[in-house]
Amino acid sequence: MSELLDKAKKIKKASEILKKMNAAEKNKTIMEIAKEIKKNKDYILKENQKDVLLAEKKGLKKSLVDRLVLNEKRIQGMINACNTVINLKDPVGEIFDSFLRDDGLRISKVRVPLGVIGIIYESRPNVTLEATILSLKSGNTVLLRGGSDAINSNKAIVKTIKSGLKKSNIPESVIEIIEDTNRDIVNEMLKLNDYIDLIIPRGGKGLIDFVVKNATVPVLETGVGICHIFVDESADIKKSIDIIDNAKTQRPGTCNTVETVLIHKNIAEKILPGLKNRLEEKNVEIRGCEETLKIINVKKATEEDWKTEYLDLILSIKIVNEIDEAINHIKTYSTGHSESILTENYFNAMKFINEIDSAAVYINASTRFTDGGEFGLGAEMGISTQKMHARGPVGLKELTTYKYLIFGNYNVRE
Amino acid sequence: MSELLDKAKKIKKASEILKKMNAAEKNKTIMEIAKEIKKNKDYILKENQKDVLLAEKKGLKKSLVDRLVLNEKRIQGMINACNTVINLKDPVGEIFDSFLRDDGLRISKVRVPLGVIGIIYESRPNVTLEATILSLKSGNTVLLRGGSDAINSNKAIVKTIKSGLKKSNIPESVIEIIEDTNRDIVNEMLKLNDYIDLIIPRGGKGLIDFVVKNATVPVLETGVGICHIFVDESADIKKSIDIIDNAKTQRPGTCNTVETVLIHKNIAEKILPGLKNRLEEKNVEIRGCEETLKIINVKKATEEDWKTEYLDLILSIKIVNEIDEAINHIKTYSTGHSESILTENYFNAMKFINEIDSAAVYINASTRFTDGGEFGLGAEMGISTQKMHARGPVGLKELTTYKYLIFGNYNVRE
Repeated sequence: MSELLDKAKKIKKASEILKKMNAAEKNKTIMEIAKEIKKNKDYILKENQKDVLLAEKKGLKKSLVDRLVLNEKRIQGMINACNTVINLKDPVGEIFDSFLRDDGLRISKVRVPLGVIGIIYESRPNVTLEATILSLKSGNTVLLRGGSDAINSNKAIVKTIKSGLKKSNIPESVIEIIEDTNRDIVNEMLKLNDYIDLIIPRGGKGLIDFVVKNATVPVLETGVGICHIFVDESADIKKSIDIIDNAKTQRPGTCNTVETVLIHKNIAEKILPGLKNRLEEKNVEIRGCEETLKIINVKKATEEDWKTEYLDLILSIKIVNEIDEAINHIKTYSTGHSESILTENYFNAMKFINEIDSAAVYINASTRFTDGGEFGLGAEMGISTQKMHARGPVGLKELTTYKYLIFGNYNVRE
Repeated sequence: MSELLDKAKKIKKASEILKKMNAAEKNKTIMEIAKEIKKNKDYILKENQKDVLLAEKKGLKKSLVDRLVLNEKRIQGMINACNTVINLKDPVGEIFDSFLRDDGLRISKVRVPLGVIGIIYESRPNVTLEATILSLKSGNTVLLRGGSDAINSNKAIVKTIKSGLKKSNIPESVIEIIEDTNRDIVNEMLKLNDYIDLIIPRGGKGLIDFVVKNATVPVLETGVGICHIFVDESADIKKSIDIIDNAKTQRPGTCNTVETVLIHKNIAEKILPGLKNRLEEKNVEIRGCEETLKIINVKKATEEDWKTEYLDLILSIKIVNEIDEAINHIKTYSTGHSESILTENYFNAMKFINEIDSAAVYINASTRFTDGGEFGLGAEMGISTQKMHARGPVGLKELTTYKYLIFGNYNVRE
């Protein structure tokens, strides 16, 4: 039997046991995992060093090597994540939408784990730990397939997690990692409908598109964010500059960062010079449409810019004649992540939130708030940009489903 | 441009208009559609007659021809469906999970339509009307692809629906039907991610499997139901026979009909003779396991029986040694639709509902209740047997999604 099928079978079996565990047992396990991470810190760092050296030797891009690196701070981040997840409420078992029929049949929904979650991810080894503890806490087992560049780090982290599991009542096979780095394995994994209930791809657009195209297992699409801010003519100039600055520079490599700012023509001359000064102080490269170039001296934006998630200190700016043009631009180029309108006009604010259909639609706030922590979920598995099942930050509740429970008294249908 | 792409583009555009319509406008439209169905009854019946004659000439199975036939009663059923859907609450626009952050940011979810729903269905032409009005009421446009056997009926119904749309403010292109009966079109439709938000296959296992395997658009799997009833040793004999009779014979062609009854060995001798008498009175063919054959004289069940959705007056029976054996049998053969335990033992009832992970899990009731009408949803698009997005009956609410709305006061993230 292949490694994939063998592990998928083990994990599906373990899923039946994990489903019966209560929150106290799951929390104890996550605490044991945190202890083992702390104890095995040097081992994990040593194995990670192998991956980093290999990556540097292969000439991997600096930003990718940086994602791969573990250090004291990142290990501490993993331990902190365990503590955060322990303190979150277990969503499993909640009874909701309950009602009593005239014939005495009591119908309700109960929240249950999805079952087995498959995670396909790229270079960040801390995903190995974070995805595992979020899955465990929500009662799901997890089959991991990390990038080949991080294989030594991932194997070390999984080994450490399993040491923690050994000290609990939860079987070791609630988590497995595919060690075979052959790319064909991903394709096979995407079609394991009998063993995997949900696939979550975490990584760049290429990975996500490949998964969506080839999976027969249901997919939760996360991540790509071409986010927009529309500055309406009634917006406050200074506060708008503060928001654009925050949305672009607070952490430019994240998916909720603004990539394109749309500016109403009647406010363009008032806001652009100040905006340019502020962004250039923060080393942001501006790319403007033709109308923008008539007001400030910046690089020219091309069609390609409207389609690009920079994940970098670059911002494209387009001047629009009216709110409808802004809405149409967003409908054309948005990835359905986060969009914001800055305005003091009531009807324009309402029009924007009614017509823009993205996971998060803002009035007068930075797009940077789209985040599980900021939205009160505590932690997240990613940001869903699809409409099915869950939209926006994917927390513990979004990793569950429900089933109907019906309590009868020997009832038959008339 | 192909018919498919042309209609997909039109429908996506119409979707933007439909999303802005309120319940009053949508209800008026459905009322106009009902009026036109009534007015054009003879035309629809005449076109349907063409399909029926062709089907008979082709030698189609009698049960399939029966599904295809429209008559006065079925046309009245379509008109009644319009009235039912008009009276349902519009789920769109509901604000929920709202909270106010310490910094004054108000975060909430608002229920919104999915967008464009693609329906791929087989011979029943009344699905054309039912799928359309459920989609319209929930703010979704609908791209229909019916079976080639029903093409004349479906075209006539769509033409009639469009006459109703002409008398309302809602554009005609909120519904389109693919007239090209070439099978390759289905495959193309399954990959139209830029135009279709959700595909719902309605039909037999072959169709559903094909859609799941080939779609890149998200799919809502509906329908196939191998439902089980487990008669525990403590169950009341007479009431258990009433429930099995109801679950098998009340409407044997439906997906929530019981197909396999599992009986605890300690109650088998007491219940089987009476059960056999009752079912044979109702013309049900029983197929039993070896142990069953020692008690009653019936046909022998094979491995194939446990895997079969009969949709007919046939029932398979298996005697089990204990509840765990019943649970394992269900886990192995269930399609995740509906399962019921008949018992007076509290802990066995709890064990069953905790360990069985199907869309609907019953204690002491017939599986026939799994239905949008019975569960209080008013009407349904089918019964979901998948875990993502929606489980069990798919009503108006399940045809929607949500987006986050964030009301700020020029807030930036710290």
